[in-house]
Amino acid sequence: MSLLVVGSIAYDSVETPKGKVEKALGGSAIYFAAAASLFTPVDVIGVVGSDYNFAPLDFLRARRVNLEGITQVPGETFYWGGIYGEDPNERETLFTRLGVFADFKPEIPPGCRKPDYVFLANIDPDLQLEVLDKVKKPRLTALDTMNFWIEGKLEALMNVLAKTDALFLNDQEMRLLTGNKNIFKGAEKLFKMGPKYIIVKKGEHGAVLLSKDQVFFAPIYPVWEVIDPTGAGDTFAGGFMGFIARENQIDWKTLKRALIYGAAAASFAVEDFSIDRLKSIRTVHIEKRVMAIKKMTEF
Amino acid sequence: MSLLVVGSIAYDSVETPKGKVEKALGGSAIYFAAAASLFTPVDVIGVVGSDYNFAPLDFLRARRVNLEGITQVPGETFYWGGIYGEDPNERETLFTRLGVFADFKPEIPPGCRKPDYVFLANIDPDLQLEVLDKVKKPRLTALDTMNFWIEGKLEALMNVLAKTDALFLNDQEMRLLTGNKNIFKGAEKLFKMGPKYIIVKKGEHGAVLLSKDQVFFAPIYPVWEVIDPTGAGDTFAGGFMGFIARENQIDWKTLKRALIYGAAAASFAVEDFSIDRLKSIRTVHIEKRVMAIKKMTEF
Repeated sequence: MSLLVVGSIAYDSVETPKGKVEKALGGSAIYFAAAASLFTPVDVIGVVGSDYNFAPLDFLRARRVNLEGITQVPGETFYWGGIYGEDPNERETLFTRLGVFADFKPEIPPGCRKPDYVFLANIDPDLQLEVLDKVKKPRLTALDTMNFWIEGKLEALMNVLAKTDALFLNDQEMRLLTGNKNIFKGAEKLFKMGPKYIIVKKGEHGAVLLSKDQVFFAPIYPVWEVIDPTGAGDTFAGGFMGFIARENQIDWKTLKRALIYGAAAASFAVEDFSIDRLKSIRTVHIEKRVMAIKKMTEF
Repeated sequence: MSLLVVGSIAYDSVETPKGKVEKALGGSAIYFAAAASLFTPVDVIGVVGSDYNFAPLDFLRARRVNLEGITQVPGETFYWGGIYGEDPNERETLFTRLGVFADFKPEIPPGCRKPDYVFLANIDPDLQLEVLDKVKKPRLTALDTMNFWIEGKLEALMNVLAKTDALFLNDQEMRLLTGNKNIFKGAEKLFKMGPKYIIVKKGEHGAVLLSKDQVFFAPIYPVWEVIDPTGAGDTFAGGFMGFIARENQIDWKTLKRALIYGAAAASFAVEDFSIDRLKSIRTVHIEKRVMAIKKMTEF
């Protein structure tokens, strides 16, 4: 089924203890699409500057990713630079040059206005709302956000949340949004804001899926050598949403499996810089890690 | 089968955001025994002062816990005071009065010298070694330790590790002992020190069991309201070792289940102060949570 993502498209310069890359492919929409396209066609909505080279995205086109919704405008593409320490959770932003992303106005091509599934990656909640206003109500809408919007645009964020089925967030965002460090108590408050499903991303500790009356735990797939943690969260969401769109089911069983598919996808993302590893794998590689995770949690 | 534990026996004064207790039952050996005795008879080795009141331990005797190995000597019982913030991982020690524990010399009663299973709770590694020297080689020896011994008594600790089958530790202790933040890489180094099994305790993120060629992830059992986190780790070890001693099997399948039994036991420990909740439950309550965890991890 069709899956639409709106998010950032960027160049990233990243340094980690394992090496560095300059102006590599990045952005939430790109990581998401690289993972989701292993399962289902994806429509990408975003903006790039006149400096953007589309050729490296050819592998996405080959995977049925529609790039028609990427607007190219005069100016510089969103450019981010960061450095990671030994702890993948600690990263320092060296620079953020929003470029054309600062004035991003999502435009949805006519052929993309009836998506079955929508992922609103971490962008201004006003823009997230705008996207939802412009498309026919999807079967499932998922949302990602960050402290910046929780602190600075809470009202707009609450408006999107009211229209969101599945919310992705991490422990800190949970605490900021609900005042609760305990994710089970925090989730109770989040359910009242709109979402039926909460996905708590816990980095190397895995992820937790919560509905009003059920809980499911996904571990990570063990990675001995994290090369670059950038984009792991968006890849996770891409695996999750891509799997759901392929199955075209929104029952608990499918959601649980989707969480594991997300975890498996994320484990590949961190094994190389940028989307390099995601580019080289096929769906069967994800499936193998899903089976491995099954063995590592079954008792 | 018989299970021997050597560890601290203490009085704890604890304050948490949910309330406080004064001079409540505490100590690693007591938490451990409270959980393990739900599965198997336990022999406790420890020391208390002349101020210690044995009557509150009657419920342990009723559960086939042998307290004969607890030596009572003139002086004050180990007394610890601490305060927890909203985050159960952050605790401040207000005072530590070692009392008679400072001169603890483990004495093993003749009837306890052929244990099938041994848990060396977090005490001076020289004492841990002494205990192993005094008993017939058990089927499985498990060890807990802490930063204090890793930093101050590394050589003695390495000697115990060489005789240890299963090592319990948390992320920070892993890092301190191996230099690795990544638990999979760290475990590789730990296996070279002696242990065949590593159990990484991750608090609210669950636990990971590692052997040289296998990994198993246990989540927590969801607790909405943590009343007092004290003793969760020792209770976890108690559930783990108690289950193994009951099954009297040391294969991977049993170890995986033991990890879940440990997680279930620990979830009860934190639901009230001291060992109050562990006192009130029966084995069937643990089994119920084990089944619930199964549902929360199966896909």
